[in-house]
Amino acid sequence: MTNEKILLNHGAGGKMTHDLISKLFFNYFDNEILRKQTDSAILHVSTSDLAYTTDSYVVDPIFFPGGNIGKLAVCGTVNDLSVSGAKPLYLSCGFILEEGLLFSDLEIIVKTMAEEAIKAKVKIVTGDTKVVDKGKCDKIFINTSGIGILQEKNKNISFGNNIQVGDKIIVNGTIGDHGTAILCARNSIEYSNSVISDCASLNGIISEVLAVSENVKFMRDATRGGLATVLCELSEKHNKGIELVEDLIPVQENVRGLCEVFGFDPLYMANEGKVVMIVAENDAENIIRVMRKNTLGKNAAIIGKITDRNKGMVTVTTGIGGTRIVDMLAGEQLPRIC
Amino acid sequence: MTNEKILLNHGAGGKMTHDLISKLFFNYFDNEILRKQTDSAILHVSTSDLAYTTDSYVVDPIFFPGGNIGKLAVCGTVNDLSVSGAKPLYLSCGFILEEGLLFSDLEIIVKTMAEEAIKAKVKIVTGDTKVVDKGKCDKIFINTSGIGILQEKNKNISFGNNIQVGDKIIVNGTIGDHGTAILCARNSIEYSNSVISDCASLNGIISEVLAVSENVKFMRDATRGGLATVLCELSEKHNKGIELVEDLIPVQENVRGLCEVFGFDPLYMANEGKVVMIVAENDAENIIRVMRKNTLGKNAAIIGKITDRNKGMVTVTTGIGGTRIVDMLAGEQLPRIC
Repeated sequence: MTNEKILLNHGAGGKMTHDLISKLFFNYFDNEILRKQTDSAILHVSTSDLAYTTDSYVVDPIFFPGGNIGKLAVCGTVNDLSVSGAKPLYLSCGFILEEGLLFSDLEIIVKTMAEEAIKAKVKIVTGDTKVVDKGKCDKIFINTSGIGILQEKNKNISFGNNIQVGDKIIVNGTIGDHGTAILCARNSIEYSNSVISDCASLNGIISEVLAVSENVKFMRDATRGGLATVLCELSEKHNKGIELVEDLIPVQENVRGLCEVFGFDPLYMANEGKVVMIVAENDAENIIRVMRKNTLGKNAAIIGKITDRNKGMVTVTTGIGGTRIVDMLAGEQLPRIC
Repeated sequence: MTNEKILLNHGAGGKMTHDLISKLFFNYFDNEILRKQTDSAILHVSTSDLAYTTDSYVVDPIFFPGGNIGKLAVCGTVNDLSVSGAKPLYLSCGFILEEGLLFSDLEIIVKTMAEEAIKAKVKIVTGDTKVVDKGKCDKIFINTSGIGILQEKNKNISFGNNIQVGDKIIVNGTIGDHGTAILCARNSIEYSNSVISDCASLNGIISEVLAVSENVKFMRDATRGGLATVLCELSEKHNKGIELVEDLIPVQENVRGLCEVFGFDPLYMANEGKVVMIVAENDAENIIRVMRKNTLGKNAAIIGKITDRNKGMVTVTTGIGGTRIVDMLAGEQLPRIC
């Protein structure tokens, strides 16, 4: 099976599609809903408040230190639901495969997705596979969408309408790891202290925080465009000032070094396992304590605050005492980061 | 704006992405849920039984007589939910765009999606846009997923477990239109009596049938692989015989003619606006009457029945009295049909 390749007919809806689905997808994603093989997944949810999201993944390369496109597709959608305050439950999964893709590569990706789904306690309940002619896509693109249920008390976290001056800004760990890992993988940079993507499902750590605190006013995962873009959007939307302290923002030494070499700013580098929270000042230390007990939060830090100065702007105070404005970039430092 | 092209930075998550989203997607898809610009759409559903589905669309060419890839993406997901007995409510939409795609082409596609969503009474509530380098995808790929609500009485339609010998097989109109339209578009075949894709949202006609009949035992939209593939799957799954009568199956003359020229069988040609129903014998005529009142059902016909002969097989009785077996194809007569 190792040299087998994906053919156009694997996506054509006939026998070969059925074999691919049953031998690969049903085998790895197996659950009682999928097993019924209905045209749509039939679900029974316990509450009528839902969160619903989608993302397509086109990352290049499809395998990188710390993950692959499949892990990214599961974590990304789990995280989008989680930062809305929802408990992720069900995922859909649409594959677009390039003719000639190695079956063995697809199998690794599908296996990783299945493992990550188990870890994140979500079920992949519906899917679709298309194959396009060689040269018409880049190996594999994956779309995931997801449904999560929302508890009454978390219904307003998405909106961030309660953010006020004095609130603290928290991040659960070092920034820029994913973007830098992709940068290295793409340029075949290998060295002893190589950067690993932070790609991870954040629903565990987020639910631990929400269990002990009712003072989380807003969350967002800092993916494409990094921490800077999340905060620029937020300050603009709510017309608040955001002041960051550079020395408080956790950045791994190897990430900082590589960013310097390439002329990139870690603030704008993509993350795939980082959540930014805006929390009430008096609960910030407590939330940091809770985060640090989780592997994904051991470098959690308070990195700044909401102010009434520089409304609608993000500023950062540097180590030597200067202040610079953090602006939203027109594009991304690195395309196809996720 | 007409010569403007999509650039890599339109999918990078920065300012250009934001402009594209607000000027194009929010403008056309506008609704109160989308307008909140939350990371996930926040939904409130009226029942706890849901149907959930996804499909990716890679049709080539992206514009064809009767529709385009965007119309297909909305109708396809609406139809997948509808044949599960659900009322489609919410759609997600993930775009993968090729660098260099004309802005004006994207705008036509998005506008068509918005119009079809209004027609089908669904809301596009969450989305995502990625751009890949030129040559790494074929103009545009779209993924849609969808959520529908299920009434108690329709909860079992997906499974088809009540199908029994004597049940009738119904289709709402002529078969093979979409596949043949794509075939013509791809080969630049133009003539006076050209074939138009049947691409349409079927939730209206299906709900009209379900409103008057509790005897619909199974439904499926006959897309990739056509009517033959749907019925082969069904007969195999339930180990029942399916007997079709060739002369009863509605096929447009131009479709029949083109299929003959190309050596294709209309039974296997894709449809994008055709539902196959298995219904109780005594209610079949009634359902046909209801269907024919709807524009999408004016050629509705009873085309065969469930039998206890040839279990697990589909057979068709030809005009001259012979019988042939309808087998599932290994692949598709035409790749990238949807």
